Amino acid sequence: MRKLHIIGIGTGNPEHVTIQAVRALNAADTVFLIDKGDAKAELLRVRREICERYIEGAQPRFVGAVDPERDRAPGDYGVAVDDWHAARAELYERLIEQNLGEGESGAFLVWGDPSLYDSTLRIIARIRARGRFAFDCEVIPGITSVQALAAGHQIPLNGIGEPVTITTGRRLAADLSTEGATVVMLDGRVDFAGLDPDLVIHWGAYLGTADELLIQGRLGDVAELIRETRRAARARHGWIMDIYRLSRPAT
Amino acid sequence: MRKLHIIGIGTGNPEHVTIQAVRALNAADTVFLIDKGDAKAELLRVRREICERYIEGAQPRFVGAVDPERDRAPGDYGVAVDDWHAARAELYERLIEQNLGEGESGAFLVWGDPSLYDSTLRIIARIRARGRFAFDCEVIPGITSVQALAAGHQIPLNGIGEPVTITTGRRLAADLSTEGATVVMLDGRVDFAGLDPDLVIHWGAYLGTADELLIQGRLGDVAELIRETRRAARARHGWIMDIYRLSRPAT
Ligand SMILES: C[S@@+](CC[C@H](N)C(=O)[O-])C[C@H]1O[C@@H](n2cnc3c(N)ncnc32)[C@H](O)[C@@H]1O
Ligand SMILES: C[S@@+](CC[C@H](N)C(=O)[O-])C[C@H]1O[C@@H](n2cnc3c(N)ncnc32)[C@H](O)[C@@H]1O
Repeated sequence: MRKLHIIGIGTGNPEHVTIQAVRALNAADTVFLIDKGDAKAELLRVRREICERYIEGAQPRFVGAVDPERDRAPGDYGVAVDDWHAARAELYERLIEQNLGEGESGAFLVWGDPSLYDSTLRIIARIRARGRFAFDCEVIPGITSVQALAAGHQIPLNGIGEPVTITTGRRLAADLSTEGATVVMLDGRVDFAGLDPDLVIHWGAYLGTADELLIQGRLGDVAELIRETRRAARARHGWIMDIYRLSRPAT
Repeated sequence: MRKLHIIGIGTGNPEHVTIQAVRALNAADTVFLIDKGDAKAELLRVRREICERYIEGAQPRFVGAVDPERDRAPGDYGVAVDDWHAARAELYERLIEQNLGEGESGAFLVWGDPSLYDSTLRIIARIRARGRFAFDCEVIPGITSVQALAAGHQIPLNGIGEPVTITTGRRLAADLSTEGATVVMLDGRVDFAGLDPDLVIHWGAYLGTADELLIQGRLGDVAELIRETRRAARARHGWIMDIYRLSRPAT
């Protein structure tokens, strides 16, 4: 039986990897390195660095591939995601069949944690449902960008006894929590339009890396600084990954 | 200047610790091991095991202490938590002053991640506000029980593009998400009263340990099994730590 390890690698700091991840990497016969396209070259670099630093002795096979393009302006969002996942399932299935023998162990490296806004587990479930070959699977958790944000600012995510909602930029208006804190990921615009200026924001970009940026304060006071910092950083790097937490003002 | 490392250690599997955590542990002159009382002896055991496994060469000083008792049936919840935090701030402040010299590095080991339903960061903020001595602080993220739950069940936390709310048993009725998934921690009762039996539940206990328990299914079908499994496990171990995710049925 083939065995797949879906390994969370943390969010930019190679030292985010866990001992469990290091052990699974060293047990791998094949490491699959999937490139998500140009803008994400940095993410691939971190994956390679992790393999170089932590895999000792006999080296696994490294199998690279480029993820199929996703339709970025689809007529129907659900259908587009479904098509994209189907294409990736076929690609990953082929990669596994061709590069992992019976009884061998393969590793997929996932940014952050595999459970948070990542589709690798859904792709693996599709491959299982297709049923071309049997395999075992183990998921190895990794540090998320949510935790990297909290660690960078040295803050708890939740108010005492209060909830935390994690959502996307697209859904922020609908999901902003009135009862607790809200963490926003995958926000391409970061314009804070329509938000109460008295909210407290903790913002972070390139968390865990040497380029980490952190800004916090009253939203009305720092919104412009965040937008400007973000614009400049994105121009400098050619890409940005950022995340923020919104909470009601302390009383 | 003294330096404090607030280190997330994961949730029961010693291999949850990150390379960053191992490095901070090895740099520590003093490791503070706070006992939360009898029922939590297992948690202290995992902390000790992590130190034994991963600290190499010269050993740090180990300083043990027992957390002040918390009022479990307070008249006023907010006041009780405040009193408890104040007592802990005084204790931790004294421990640091007595066991960490100027220029030395100290480590506090926190279950899971320091940002999630843990008060260590609030205690540290209080000590800073009291201003008796200056110190630097660094937070090192760790694997949370939320991630251990998702990894155990090999599931994503969020539906595609959907939010995730993390809350407590106490607040579940108010915080159950209609838009996405809900993760419930710190639920002492786990009675599922009043919840839609068509919800899907993923439940886990002792996650990351050799005693890990996992049950999933339609809530109406598995609620009784979960309650019974929980009751028996708690009787056997003398304590339990469990967490669950609720989501709408797949369509
Ligand atoms: C597709 S999601 C993947 C999340 C990942 N699985 C995790 O556990 O953090 C990508 C989003 O995560 C956030 N993100 C990931 N890495 C980050 C980093 N190093 N700094 C800031 N935000 C990051 C950003 O909000 C980005 O839009
Ligand atoms: C005081 S909170 C601390 C959470 C911790 N900081 C974290 O990051 O997971 C304790 C709650 O976390 C959950 N928990 C912690 N460890 C767990 C484990 N190994 N298995 C299941 N639940 C766990 C339970 O819901 C428990 O009531």
